[in-house]
Amino acid sequence: MPKKSLPLSKVYTLIEPGPVVLLTTAASEKSNVMAMSWHSMLEFEPPLIGCVVSNRSHSYTLLKKSRECVINIPTADIADKVVGCGNTTGATTDKFKKFGLTPGPAAVVHVPLIEECWASLECRVVDTSMVSQYAFFVLEVLKAWVDPRTRQPRTIHHRGYGSFMVAGETIKLRSKMR
Amino acid sequence: MPKKSLPLSKVYTLIEPGPVVLLTTAASEKSNVMAMSWHSMLEFEPPLIGCVVSNRSHSYTLLKKSRECVINIPTADIADKVVGCGNTTGATTDKFKKFGLTPGPAAVVHVPLIEECWASLECRVVDTSMVSQYAFFVLEVLKAWVDPRTRQPRTIHHRGYGSFMVAGETIKLRSKMR
Repeated sequence: MPKKSLPLSKVYTLIEPGPVVLLTTAASEKSNVMAMSWHSMLEFEPPLIGCVVSNRSHSYTLLKKSRECVINIPTADIADKVVGCGNTTGATTDKFKKFGLTPGPAAVVHVPLIEECWASLECRVVDTSMVSQYAFFVLEVLKAWVDPRTRQPRTIHHRGYGSFMVAGETIKLRSKMR
Repeated sequence: MPKKSLPLSKVYTLIEPGPVVLLTTAASEKSNVMAMSWHSMLEFEPPLIGCVVSNRSHSYTLLKKSRECVINIPTADIADKVVGCGNTTGATTDKFKKFGLTPGPAAVVHVPLIEECWASLECRVVDTSMVSQYAFFVLEVLKAWVDPRTRQPRTIHHRGYGSFMVAGETIKLRSKMR
């Protein structure tokens, strides 16, 4: 997917709507993919994102080691792959292979992007002080990519128990919120 | 709106999809409403939610004082009121009055619910250690309410610059994710 660079000041527009994301991690020649819904913007610019990566997950081990990751945003057309990633562990499964996800090169970090995803945010861990209590990592987005052809991304939003809301229509309101 | 109690174990199903919420606060006989998109689940049960409440906001002052709040989840039919709340400050405006929002009694906290909202989560601040650096409050949900008639809530999701995505169709996938 030919992605173009997105100004870092606009990263919040991707994260605020609350999509399920695919977190990619890599360390010691291993890489992994994790489905994640527990994330929040923390600062506009430089964009900071807080997210929970359970210490029972394989991604936790890789993230602690390399302190780098990529937040990839999928759309409804690959929802089955996203659920697949959420239902398996990277400890015993190569999820890129199993679910037909294509690793692509990142510009800044040493972690693969996912080519099939509409957007990708290259991140570095900048604060681990909340990790022991909440498994909450603070990430700084160093580089952001989006597919310019996707104007109305049909992102998916987890409602629990295998139920996902798919992004619907867009409404425009006179907002002074950034 | 006749809301019924929701088991605390299901609170994550309301927050994970990433809706814009209306945070109500109250202290010293004053109350306020704030539109908020920077929030994330931190724990399933007891449900913990982390959220950013800027120290430049009036809600910050009230929240610091009373350490209680309610997270109310609006739907598209009151999107104009939500944007209104986002574009004004409680320091000089009674937003309940200005936008025709009806304060209702909470069961546990001393902060009003918003009757027009589809769901309301009564919360207590349980951790302020990330407030000075990120204005990030950790809340415990003590009581949750939903309108049982709303099966497919048309929640709104901020995309920036006055643009909001409205929750669309629901898809079911075989997920082992809680």
